Amino acid sequence: MASTELTFQTTAEHRAWLKTQETLPRGFSVGTASFDFIPAEAPKPATMTLSLIKLDQPSPDFGAVFTRNAFPGAPVIIGRQRLDEESLGALVINNKISNVCAPGGVETAEKICASVAAATGLKAEQVLPSSTGVIGWQLPVTEIQAVIPTATAQLQSESILPAAEGIMTTDLYPKLRSVEIGDGRIVGIAKGAGMVEPNMATMLVFILTDIAMPRDVLRAQLKAAVDVSFNRISIDTDTSTSDTVAVVSSGLVQDVAPDNFAAGLRQICRDLAEDVVRNGEGVRHVLRVKVSSAPDAVFATALGRAVVNAPLFKCAVAGNDPNVGRLVQAIGRHLGNLDDPTDTSRMRLTLGGIEIFADGVFQLNPEKERALEAHLTQAELYQSAPTAEGAYHPPVDYPPHERCVEIGIDLGIGGAKSTVLGADLTHEYVTENADYRS
Amino acid sequence: MASTELTFQTTAEHRAWLKTQETLPRGFSVGTASFDFIPAEAPKPATMTLSLIKLDQPSPDFGAVFTRNAFPGAPVIIGRQRLDEESLGALVINNKISNVCAPGGVETAEKICASVAAATGLKAEQVLPSSTGVIGWQLPVTEIQAVIPTATAQLQSESILPAAEGIMTTDLYPKLRSVEIGDGRIVGIAKGAGMVEPNMATMLVFILTDIAMPRDVLRAQLKAAVDVSFNRISIDTDTSTSDTVAVVSSGLVQDVAPDNFAAGLRQICRDLAEDVVRNGEGVRHVLRVKVSSAPDAVFATALGRAVVNAPLFKCAVAGNDPNVGRLVQAIGRHLGNLDDPTDTSRMRLTLGGIEIFADGVFQLNPEKERALEAHLTQAELYQSAPTAEGAYHPPVDYPPHERCVEIGIDLGIGGAKSTVLGADLTHEYVTENADYRS
Repeated sequence: MASTELTFQTTAEHRAWLKTQETLPRGFSVGTASFDFIPAEAPKPATMTLSLIKLDQPSPDFGAVFTRNAFPGAPVIIGRQRLDEESLGALVINNKISNVCAPGGVETAEKICASVAAATGLKAEQVLPSSTGVIGWQLPVTEIQAVIPTATAQLQSESILPAAEGIMTTDLYPKLRSVEIGDGRIVGIAKGAGMVEPNMATMLVFILTDIAMPRDVLRAQLKAAVDVSFNRISIDTDTSTSDTVAVVSSGLVQDVAPDNFAAGLRQICRDLAEDVVRNGEGVRHVLRVKVSSAPDAVFATALGRAVVNAPLFKCAVAGNDPNVGRLVQAIGRHLGNLDDPTDTSRMRLTLGGIEIFADGVFQLNPEKERALEAHLTQAELYQSAPTAEGAYHPPVDYPPHERCVEIGIDLGIGGAKSTVLGADLTHEYVTENADYRS
Repeated sequence: MASTELTFQTTAEHRAWLKTQETLPRGFSVGTASFDFIPAEAPKPATMTLSLIKLDQPSPDFGAVFTRNAFPGAPVIIGRQRLDEESLGALVINNKISNVCAPGGVETAEKICASVAAATGLKAEQVLPSSTGVIGWQLPVTEIQAVIPTATAQLQSESILPAAEGIMTTDLYPKLRSVEIGDGRIVGIAKGAGMVEPNMATMLVFILTDIAMPRDVLRAQLKAAVDVSFNRISIDTDTSTSDTVAVVSSGLVQDVAPDNFAAGLRQICRDLAEDVVRNGEGVRHVLRVKVSSAPDAVFATALGRAVVNAPLFKCAVAGNDPNVGRLVQAIGRHLGNLDDPTDTSRMRLTLGGIEIFADGVFQLNPEKERALEAHLTQAELYQSAPTAEGAYHPPVDYPPHERCVEIGIDLGIGGAKSTVLGADLTHEYVTENADYRS
């Protein structure tokens, strides 16, 4: 179950790789339907896709973790209630509008669940809704209800890929990972490209498995897997109002050891988390910060997050500029704001494996500077260039490689460690986010 | 002592306004000297300016607050020691290199202090050093020592403007404010354009006064003034390793009431803090977040900071896009991460004075959306446009107005309030920071 090293040169290669991952576990089917509509709040034509994931039989073995944002979307409010239901029979997901703090949002989402239930022989309480997109706008409920029959008619039990594509917003490519364990499999899809931060992001993740796992075990394993994966990534500190990671088992494959399943689930979560960062809005470098010899894992994770969220360092990386002063500044800012002072005398920093700081001073020379710059350049996902109009857009629609900017922070004061993933701060990020709604 | 409303149309107007502020208090003189040199770490020609501020007589009445960063620059380490000295006789400031975590940094700074002392008839311990610029590089100590006689020869007691210009790095224009109180005055200058965050920024501020104020009173007043000014601004969360706000009195004007002096000092700090934000790297909109009806001021300030540091909202403002969903998302992220839940049921949000959120849902319509967009547009400092090569640079070298994007957050759960200033996130910010060193 080692991570797959992706080294795509073309979209066709990426497509071929997706084919190796797409097979649905037994007991599930997937259907989608797209339609055009006019949002009431900004009367310009838009396209929405509805994705439907259905279990052949409702299952008691499902779980989900949700955003900690104080203004959760209506689907999150409903989803928390669904956790108390006896079984789950379907998931219905729309992109484009997130149904957050919109008038009547909960009622709207419940109407959609009821329509899905009626079309699939379920009760509304057995349907988990999810939405992602613009905050504050109202869902076009009539239009959504009108395409539910189309999505139902499209249901097929071969591939999860239509849903992986259907839930995308500004994502450049579908994110889809699977593992096989004995006779069963786990398949996960993720949507998420911005507003990505610890404690769940504008990120929707749906993980399906046919491996039988009791509800309580499944939920505990999900929480543990999320903690070491999606809770250790950050594109821009912006936790969304809609983040959801849901898992559901059809229970058709017996006798897989819980530990084996947990390892597979963790792998899926880690791979998808890294995919989400690599596909972050405008991301040209993925940062991987490994904090070691820390007092505890919470301390290590917080320090890693501080580094991947430091705008000046992120900008320097975007420019392939090994401005290691800004790395030390970011670490020092975080440590200086803690209640208790941290002993930094044994701290050792590496960038691309090259020692850059030790004994309280920088360890630099022109040869090292060249090697650091080469490390940044080889980790670049694509080169930045504006269009004729001056706008910047990511030019690729597949992940060309899985290399990262590797940052090591060895504190020398404990035995704990943590790895946090993040991204640089680029013109492409600003372009995508300065005028997203229009 | 009301804030001056700046509405400059040209650099000449700005220059004329600076002339109204530049007069030195009695008992001070200022001299500067610039020189070219080759940094050892990146062998390309660079220009450094040395600024010297000298008291006619060493004074016991001085104070300073410094960065909380865990890796303070050598001048900060020395500055903390200087606070225990009996008197201060001069300040020496260089730009271009910050002397942080560089081998032998403290010894280098002390050598420079000793040379200044020798040239001005002081002891080295009576000289406060300050440096700003690239982190990690070594100061060109020989070259600096060589120009100290030039700076000394330039000393004049008319204008602080040469120092306001001499301490600039990526600043677009000198930042200089003054107030008169009775027969005395307070004059402050600031350097700071990026890496600006609560608890002091890459920001150097030097405040001179001829009003007599005992050391202990002066230091307490400085701390209080900094807390409601420089500690309530943030460009990019990045607290620098060099932040310093220093104040010194020549003591020549007696009998100003401490409360009057404190009010003037607070005004200077607030005006300079706003100037620093308005001149932030790539800033095109200044955000002013007024949090009211909060449980306490610390709570209110933290919430305001969370808003001005939310990248997605900052990008939306840059694009004059009133994406109020991202404002709610940023507030919700902050409140959701607090240990105790916050009652948000009475929260009311305004943008440009227009109600956008109340009773838990958005209060929007197309007419309001147009008014919100107009508010963002009128607060824009300049329009963004790439050069032919695709790079973005701020096109003005003076602050064209003092308007802000006005954000109101009324929590309805207490009696405390706070105002926090911040900035949008623009292409110009990325351009300035993606390749600053080269």
